Amino acid sequence: MSESGEGLDASSSGAAKGVTWARRSQVPPFSPAPGIQVQPVIGESLMTCWIAMEPGAVVIEHSHPNEQLGVVVEGSVSITAEGETREMVIGDAYVVPSDMAHSGVAGADGVLLVETFVPIREEYARAWRAVVEG
Amino acid sequence: MSESGEGLDASSSGAAKGVTWARRSQVPPFSPAPGIQVQPVIGESLMTCWIAMEPGAVVIEHSHPNEQLGVVVEGSVSITAEGETREMVIGDAYVVPSDMAHSGVAGADGVLLVETFVPIREEYARAWRAVVEG
Repeated sequence: MSESGEGLDASSSGAAKGVTWARRSQVPPFSPAPGIQVQPVIGESLMTCWIAMEPGAVVIEHSHPNEQLGVVVEGSVSITAEGETREMVIGDAYVVPSDMAHSGVAGADGVLLVETFVPIREEYARAWRAVVEG
Repeated sequence: MSESGEGLDASSSGAAKGVTWARRSQVPPFSPAPGIQVQPVIGESLMTCWIAMEPGAVVIEHSHPNEQLGVVVEGSVSITAEGETREMVIGDAYVVPSDMAHSGVAGADGVLLVETFVPIREEYARAWRAVVEG
């Protein structure tokens, strides 16, 4: 993890008050479940993650106090919440309120999401730092 | 603005506690400056916007108390903050802290950003609602 240059700056850890510049190819991923890779960028009050899911990869039903706002940037994913399942494709977005149970299944070509959590999802931050710190 | 179906739900206004489903093609844009179109999705604690800038479109230097985390999903943009200018391309991200002056210029092919603001940028919410409400 570099301190400067074109890569991921130290401030991505959320520790600094300066601007953060991040390049996805230089953000180490962690894997919270099979077929899923998460690359976070962490600010002071929010965390945005690139979440790449292989075709058919599953996020089992779960909930968390963090509000979650996701945008589909590649592929597709079926999201289930409040008893409803929707196929989300490029250009779709969703907001899952705090503590609402939700699940997801990646489509036939997988999916790349840009998902933001407020407040920062600390278990993700910890899992990522464990990878970064080796 | 539809209350149900595949489009933008009423909960996109931030007024409801249910899940929000949004489709970019059905989110009315507002234009804060020439060559810039903003399509917000509004949660309880955060706002994520698709921000489309035409080639060479300019966001003049400004600041706001809202923390800002942007991801480039199409094209490129030059972002200036803290006396440094970086060319950001697909797969790049940046975090601009609260009250930090910053500016931007879209690249030769324009840019599509997914930018999140915490707390919600109320002047954007107002400008958008003015469009939605006609």
